[in-house]
Amino acid sequence: MGEEIMKNRNLHFTDEPTKIKELVMPIFASESVLRFELNNGASGRVMIGVAEQDDCAAFEVSGGAMIVAGSDYIRGAKFRLYEAGLLTAYDIGWYLAGANISDIAAMGAVPIGMLSVVRYPKDIEDEEFGEILRGIRDSCAAVDCLNVGGDIGTADELILSGSAFGMVEPEAMLLRSGAHAGQVICVTGATGGAGAAMKLVAAGARDRVAPEVFERLLAGWRRVSPRVAHGRLLAAARGATACIDTSDGLKAALETLAVQSQVGMVVDLESVPLAEDVRAAAEALEIDPWELVFGDSVDFELVATVEPDSFSGLLRRCTAQGLPLWPIGHTEDGDGVDVVSGGERSATPGESWRHR
Amino acid sequence: MGEEIMKNRNLHFTDEPTKIKELVMPIFASESVLRFELNNGASGRVMIGVAEQDDCAAFEVSGGAMIVAGSDYIRGAKFRLYEAGLLTAYDIGWYLAGANISDIAAMGAVPIGMLSVVRYPKDIEDEEFGEILRGIRDSCAAVDCLNVGGDIGTADELILSGSAFGMVEPEAMLLRSGAHAGQVICVTGATGGAGAAMKLVAAGARDRVAPEVFERLLAGWRRVSPRVAHGRLLAAARGATACIDTSDGLKAALETLAVQSQVGMVVDLESVPLAEDVRAAAEALEIDPWELVFGDSVDFELVATVEPDSFSGLLRRCTAQGLPLWPIGHTEDGDGVDVVSGGERSATPGESWRHR
Repeated sequence: MGEEIMKNRNLHFTDEPTKIKELVMPIFASESVLRFELNNGASGRVMIGVAEQDDCAAFEVSGGAMIVAGSDYIRGAKFRLYEAGLLTAYDIGWYLAGANISDIAAMGAVPIGMLSVVRYPKDIEDEEFGEILRGIRDSCAAVDCLNVGGDIGTADELILSGSAFGMVEPEAMLLRSGAHAGQVICVTGATGGAGAAMKLVAAGARDRVAPEVFERLLAGWRRVSPRVAHGRLLAAARGATACIDTSDGLKAALETLAVQSQVGMVVDLESVPLAEDVRAAAEALEIDPWELVFGDSVDFELVATVEPDSFSGLLRRCTAQGLPLWPIGHTEDGDGVDVVSGGERSATPGESWRHR
Repeated sequence: MGEEIMKNRNLHFTDEPTKIKELVMPIFASESVLRFELNNGASGRVMIGVAEQDDCAAFEVSGGAMIVAGSDYIRGAKFRLYEAGLLTAYDIGWYLAGANISDIAAMGAVPIGMLSVVRYPKDIEDEEFGEILRGIRDSCAAVDCLNVGGDIGTADELILSGSAFGMVEPEAMLLRSGAHAGQVICVTGATGGAGAAMKLVAAGARDRVAPEVFERLLAGWRRVSPRVAHGRLLAAARGATACIDTSDGLKAALETLAVQSQVGMVVDLESVPLAEDVRAAAEALEIDPWELVFGDSVDFELVATVEPDSFSGLLRRCTAQGLPLWPIGHTEDGDGVDVVSGGERSATPGESWRHR
């Protein structure tokens, strides 16, 4: 097929067949067969990936397994931090895979594959396009997952979308609807950092925090770390019954668990992790730091509910792997999400992420 | 969450939470658990779908199975026939699911689920949005598949993307690379109809064919019929070793099989099905009808290669189910795709679909 390479200040723009051959294949094709094994003996492996260029990717599964799958679309040209030059093409590729795999982690599953849809404007530079793919590849590799296919081609603007797959023991799958009264609510890390970075940018206030603080906050966007290891420990813990990621913010995550499990949630504000950087951002923004911790963010931590008599064992196993786990409250009969601070009970601070 | 319904000439525009509650759920939530069984005894069922609104969809699989998955992005605002008013919102929803499921059929697999990404401009009418979803639902239902989730939300323009999943006996999976010399090449139906409709529109020549002819040609876009039943019969036939769909046109399909299987292909032009409507379109366009049959189209037929001693049995089983199957040539040592007509061998007519 035809090849159009325009050389202009050493920038390369190739057509789609050339992109597949010269950019996509070298980045993904060296991946070898990847195997997965579950605690119940079920196993899986990637049989058909990018290199095979077939109609579909294929995973061979034997034994009893739950295959989980989810899709996330990443705002393309609207991806404001990318457009503002604060995220690179590599970063948004990383983000695409990380955001999709986070949904797999939230089911307690092992990620086994990723399909990436990358549609690009005709004049995208090869270097930029390749960086997106390398970001996807490395983000997958960070959690031992493979990008196994997808759809590339042109569009009016950059469009990123993906689907991730995982497998989990059927009896261990963690649902949003699995919580009930009397459980410990826990979170896998401090939240609000990514949201804080965005708010600093939006307010033109990034110079009001130290450069290294801003960089650390931005890292939440640049290197999304889906909590796969946490998810697997939660899935293996008998008493963990519900889980969700905080990709819409901590408040939204708690509210969703409460609604879908028909249970009330009480958060002990003094137990909720508050990162120093988030505190600094709140000062710069002259707002309550809890608004950042609970509000609109994309931290990709997990929130889970666990039976009280299972919690200490789970905490011990997390600690042994160097994974933090914070008990932040408990579930009760009722509905809604309240916080308790200094003995006083009130509504949860922050604003939930709103789809827009 | 807030609800914004603007009433304007009886058009409804709702925000995303309202869309999920009032449009998405009623359309998809009534679906019940769906079960699948393979010839080797492996089985699967949908456990978590749209109604559960969890992080992922989930399929429980037991026994040895190959899970296949693919993604197709559908040009949104560029979807010219939709913009020209020749396809409805329902039609493009149907197309999205059909095009994705066709890749599952081409692996010889049973479709088990679909994830749909529907991003829409803020001012999309509820009726229009609902029609897209109903098209997706009905297209899935036509092949006993379920839409199990996805991602909806706003974007600057209409963006449709999806992923489909299927399961197939590991030993029966049909790859593009599976052909070898001495096999029968077969196709599941006449090709070129959808491409003919597009060319008539592009040439402003739709009035040069009878209205019912144009409507039948357009049906190839409106009601994509993934060849799932054919794919399953091919997978069950021991001698069928390679398969691909014709979503890039018959010529592109043959060329891809030839390249990926490292085999030559010889097509007997007199055996290739030529629909009357395609012949009429070619006359109106004043071109060779074979250019339409082989060229740029989106017919979603399957092309497969089958051992000669298996072919008659396969044909009998297809016929018994009312499914057409056309032997159109044979594979040989070598490379490339030639056609033979009146004893003369020449290059394949038509132009392969080019990604653009």
